[in-house]
Amino acid sequence: MADTAGLRHWYVPDAFIPVVSTPPELSHESICVLNPSETDAELTVTVYFADREPETSAPIILPARRDAHLRTSVPEQVGGLRIEPGIPYGIEVASASDLQVQYSRLDTTQAAYTLMTAMPSPR
Amino acid sequence: MADTAGLRHWYVPDAFIPVVSTPPELSHESICVLNPSETDAELTVTVYFADREPETSAPIILPARRDAHLRTSVPEQVGGLRIEPGIPYGIEVASASDLQVQYSRLDTTQAAYTLMTAMPSPR
Amino acid sequence: MADTAGLRHWYVPDAFIPVVSTPPELSHESICVLNPSETDAELTVTVYFADREPETSAPIILPARRDAHLRTSVPEQVGGLRIEPGIPYGIEVASASDLQVQYSRLDTTQAAYTLMTAMPSPR
Amino acid sequence: MADTAGLRHWYVPDAFIPVVSTPPELSHESICVLNPSETDAELTVTVYFADREPETSAPIILPARRDAHLRTSVPEQVGGLRIEPGIPYGIEVASASDLQVQYSRLDTTQAAYTLMTAMPSPR
Repeated sequence: MADTAGLRHWYVPDAFIPVVSTPPELSHESICVLNPSETDAELTVTVYFADREPETSAPIILPARRDAHLRTSVPEQVGGLRIEPGIPYGIEVASASDLQVQYSRLDTTQAAYTLMTAMPSPR
Repeated sequence: MADTAGLRHWYVPDAFIPVVSTPPELSHESICVLNPSETDAELTVTVYFADREPETSAPIILPARRDAHLRTSVPEQVGGLRIEPGIPYGIEVASASDLQVQYSRLDTTQAAYTLMTAMPSPR
Repeated sequence: MADTAGLRHWYVPDAFIPVVSTPPELSHESICVLNPSETDAELTVTVYFADREPETSAPIILPARRDAHLRTSVPEQVGGLRIEPGIPYGIEVASASDLQVQYSRLDTTQAAYTLMTAMPSPR
Repeated sequence: MADTAGLRHWYVPDAFIPVVSTPPELSHESICVLNPSETDAELTVTVYFADREPETSAPIILPARRDAHLRTSVPEQVGGLRIEPGIPYGIEVASASDLQVQYSRLDTTQAAYTLMTAMPSPR
């Protein structure tokens, strides 16, 4: 999706919201975006699935000189997307701005949690 | 392998299917592939070992606008490859399409599991 | 920040100093920098937040042929920055030298800790 | 080091051999190298420290179409280098061949171990 000329794209093929958490830590994923520039940035998030069409978020604004950790499980943080836990999926971030993007997952399914992170290059 | 002109390659030198799992979570690896384009993609997986010749899978189809998490321990998901657990190996993904590729491992050998992930650039 | 011509930049959008530790291991992050060249390198660290202006460190010297693991929680190691634990933030490393940069986090919030690491490309 | 024309370099600024292990799993790091080409490859490993000069290994041969997971704690696997556990350090892999390189660490200091991995691009 989002093949409009001039857009940069970042991809995270391995996305997954764990169903289970071990309190007090909540299992979650974050799309972390950093806008080091002097102008506000607009981005969208598109989610891809194994067996149905992708969905694209409403535009998300990241102000100049700001860093945000957007939780994929919180629709207000990802432009209204409602992503079901327990389903393997993939993520595309698209923006005309030169953002910095990182994906991280905290999984607390078992007591003693685990972290993973990945840093896609823009395409 | 797979040096045919026009193919992109992605490499994961550190692949390993853990032998042990702590129920209910199953230790496993996944090759996660995202095809954001409007045309179906074909890919193959080649596995490399320390002391024997590599093996290449049958072609795998990833439809347009789809994301798949292919488990290396499930032959039907990786073009028929039967990869032995407990053996250090490496992975090559080859495709003529501009796929997005990520490798992840969930290891539940000990209670309280751990995740790792890596995102190879195309070569 | 730090748009001066000739500077390389490395970005870590997902930074976070965990508040809790399980002794004896201390939760911490490190910015790991390697200077394989024959000349000393100077770098600065800029930290970005969700809701306030970024802050830039004093210059940090990394001698020729040296590798340093700089703990973000130790102001003397990151050019005087005092970064509050428990706050999502992002990191920019800037240098005129061709450094190698890696970010790692050890989180011991729960017994049985977890590691994550990321390797930004220079921009 | 190793600035000879024609060599590719891969860097891992965050290397560390954990001192403690929780049996039966042994804490260790691996430099994972994949040689997908039809010719044998030669590589060296150089290790960098915070406060002393780097050391370079003897040449290591990786045969054509082979993948090896080289443990940094086993001198015979890393060209004779004896790397002390518990010391933060950095790694450089140098080769004239177009290898694929990945670094992984398994840390079993606490019961319930953790993995991290990183995939440097060639420089």
